[in-house]
Amino acid sequence: MQKIASRQSFAALFIFLCCLGCGRDDRPNSTLVFQSDFGLKDGAVSAMKGVASGVSKDIRIYDVTHEIPAYNIWEAAYRLVQTAPYWPVGTVFVSVVDPGVGTKRKSVVLLTESGHYFVTPDNGTLTLVAEQMGIKEVREIDEVNNRRKNSNESYTFHGRDVYAFTGARLASRAISFEEVGPKLPAKVDTLPYQRAAFKDGKIFGSIPILDVQYGNVWTNIDKKLFENLHIQMGEAVTVKISKGDSSVFQGRVRYVNTFGDVPEGELAGYFNSLLQFSLGINMGSFSEKKGVGSGNDWNIILSK
Amino acid sequence: MQKIASRQSFAALFIFLCCLGCGRDDRPNSTLVFQSDFGLKDGAVSAMKGVASGVSKDIRIYDVTHEIPAYNIWEAAYRLVQTAPYWPVGTVFVSVVDPGVGTKRKSVVLLTESGHYFVTPDNGTLTLVAEQMGIKEVREIDEVNNRRKNSNESYTFHGRDVYAFTGARLASRAISFEEVGPKLPAKVDTLPYQRAAFKDGKIFGSIPILDVQYGNVWTNIDKKLFENLHIQMGEAVTVKISKGDSSVFQGRVRYVNTFGDVPEGELAGYFNSLLQFSLGINMGSFSEKKGVGSGNDWNIILSK
Amino acid sequence: MQKIASRQSFAALFIFLCCLGCGRDDRPNSTLVFQSDFGLKDGAVSAMKGVASGVSKDIRIYDVTHEIPAYNIWEAAYRLVQTAPYWPVGTVFVSVVDPGVGTKRKSVVLLTESGHYFVTPDNGTLTLVAEQMGIKEVREIDEVNNRRKNSNESYTFHGRDVYAFTGARLASRAISFEEVGPKLPAKVDTLPYQRAAFKDGKIFGSIPILDVQYGNVWTNIDKKLFENLHIQMGEAVTVKISKGDSSVFQGRVRYVNTFGDVPEGELAGYFNSLLQFSLGINMGSFSEKKGVGSGNDWNIILSK
Repeated sequence: MQKIASRQSFAALFIFLCCLGCGRDDRPNSTLVFQSDFGLKDGAVSAMKGVASGVSKDIRIYDVTHEIPAYNIWEAAYRLVQTAPYWPVGTVFVSVVDPGVGTKRKSVVLLTESGHYFVTPDNGTLTLVAEQMGIKEVREIDEVNNRRKNSNESYTFHGRDVYAFTGARLASRAISFEEVGPKLPAKVDTLPYQRAAFKDGKIFGSIPILDVQYGNVWTNIDKKLFENLHIQMGEAVTVKISKGDSSVFQGRVRYVNTFGDVPEGELAGYFNSLLQFSLGINMGSFSEKKGVGSGNDWNIILSK
Repeated sequence: MQKIASRQSFAALFIFLCCLGCGRDDRPNSTLVFQSDFGLKDGAVSAMKGVASGVSKDIRIYDVTHEIPAYNIWEAAYRLVQTAPYWPVGTVFVSVVDPGVGTKRKSVVLLTESGHYFVTPDNGTLTLVAEQMGIKEVREIDEVNNRRKNSNESYTFHGRDVYAFTGARLASRAISFEEVGPKLPAKVDTLPYQRAAFKDGKIFGSIPILDVQYGNVWTNIDKKLFENLHIQMGEAVTVKISKGDSSVFQGRVRYVNTFGDVPEGELAGYFNSLLQFSLGINMGSFSEKKGVGSGNDWNIILSK
Repeated sequence: MQKIASRQSFAALFIFLCCLGCGRDDRPNSTLVFQSDFGLKDGAVSAMKGVASGVSKDIRIYDVTHEIPAYNIWEAAYRLVQTAPYWPVGTVFVSVVDPGVGTKRKSVVLLTESGHYFVTPDNGTLTLVAEQMGIKEVREIDEVNNRRKNSNESYTFHGRDVYAFTGARLASRAISFEEVGPKLPAKVDTLPYQRAAFKDGKIFGSIPILDVQYGNVWTNIDKKLFENLHIQMGEAVTVKISKGDSSVFQGRVRYVNTFGDVPEGELAGYFNSLLQFSLGINMGSFSEKKGVGSGNDWNIILSK
């Protein structure tokens, strides 16, 4: 026992010295976080967690959400970037929104500059984490070695047979990141989307997603861009929302810290928990009341 | 190593001796249980758990529910008292139904006489646990020291930035209960509600909540109060339900141990898992069939 | 400490030697997996987990699903067999779909030949795991010894008071399998259902369940049975679906590895993740578009 302890101490010292070099230990931390469009009504999520639990009892298993609308890769991308930065360095995410399962899309693991791992089909899911958390290295999953035993006859559930299995092995350090498979060029498959911009005294942005539970409208306009308008806290901002060519909402909205700063039922403009400009109604649903949705064709223009 | 073991043994002995004094160890037990009205469709719950997981890998994270209807503080209060007594002493609950986020409502931690901790905005959420589990001590969260690093610009997600962070630090004993912040008077903000009472041979009660999944109707009439009617198991009880001034249901219902004791489709009166008088239909939904809802204006009268 | 270590080593050696006899260690592995028809909107699931967590902090708690439609024992049976084989040997499942709670149905624990434990009312829930994973031993829960303290007055929540408590004690080895209660004959209560069969060049099967999230139709026809038709990958199979006596769908469907192998919107026949013949539409819902449901009266006939 003494011998083992010494060997472990030595290993720990070695790792410590290595990390002095890189400045941080971003090796997997045995935390595994699942996301999918499977829903929670059947056994699919449970089968993935069973496989992961069978790899190692020491991993801690959590979820982003399994209520991504079926096949909605954009929302998968958004939910990852909404949550991953709040998880510790070394966390391994497994995201399975995979309409192309069993076809030729690549299965990859992305290690971001921030030190997070993402195990997923490379189908656009990584668009936002790659952009905002940085690409450190991408590896293709070697599906011969990194696949659940005796699962070759199953073509439609890579989430269970490949991604959960590989994510759990990576998280528990049963395999190293290098053992995932061959290194790929440092890029990922991305979905096209409209960036926000300031032009002629106006900010042109889009509505990537709704805060579904409360009906708040979330834009892709961050604080720095917003400051171009020189609008002080408490003043009103002019808002125009359109879907494609049709105007949906036009009005003036008070800029505040939080919806609770306006009377009940009144409109509020504020920066959400991801520090993006958002629209809400205190104790009400902006999206429902004003008929606002989200997606590539939903645009917003802010001005003084 | 021997030395460490001895020191730990000594500490354990010390704690043991302390507890001989107080009779029980109600220090946080590294179990953290979340509740919110966030739903599970987006990443909000996951962001909270990520923050908690980053505080300590040794805490065990669970949930009450995240499907509290948006802003429904009463239901938050009810779900807490429905579940907390079944969790071990020292469990830390984080409940975030927070329509006033970013405004002046206090952020507190309640330690109950039963030895459970509740981290929450003090907005009525604690009404029922304070009453039924007893107030031992209330502390206000010092949001300068007990707040996620670099989260000051975010005003709308105290669940992530303050409550999850503080709950996890408390659960893992990174801070003591005293380090949460200054002690407050031993009371909490409460929602008004109608207590049940026996008068003139009748029991006057209310319907605080429905057993939503099965359509059973749960009242606030406990067994001891019910015994005033002197109704034996198997006999019928006369039930009148009204919403405000309008009568909704009137009839005689058999008093049994469980809905399975009456034939399929028949009405049953029984004591639910919280030992409150309840109404159900064997294999059916009482609330749907009879149009019964729940809330402050729903009243029930029982008589022989 | 040395002494303890030696004693543990000795115990480990003893167990190891025992297992040389039986060929595998199928003792509970401290993993506890819950299933119910409670939904996630209230505190019922949380109360069960609180009880389990109070038994031992060392058990790892997971879920199959809690969205089994109320009282639907058939779906409970199906979800168990869909997931249990993917969990490690020694996992303890607690399944609570219990319309007869508080009445005379037996409470049992089944140990399967595969080494998995199932704690549940014996009401048909075990139909499919018993058949497909094999019955090794069935024990009736002794509800005097294996019941949460002071829970005798509650008749309607055995999930919390008996099953979660017993499952957690079994999973954490606080009790042995023998201590669950007396041994019963090696059989379980089963639901009747239609097996698939090959006859006169046709396969007659049924539709036990839908893949609800995506609208795929899952049959009970496995690969070996399908091979009787001698249909090659890429060829079409003739499909007839009826509900009772009424024909619902009739057509030719291409047999492929995965729905992604046909163009978007086209029908596909494939083997699902449980290796049963299934029908889907690439990026669409077969069940919705063709009006197909599931259950005992839904039949399917396949031919060349």
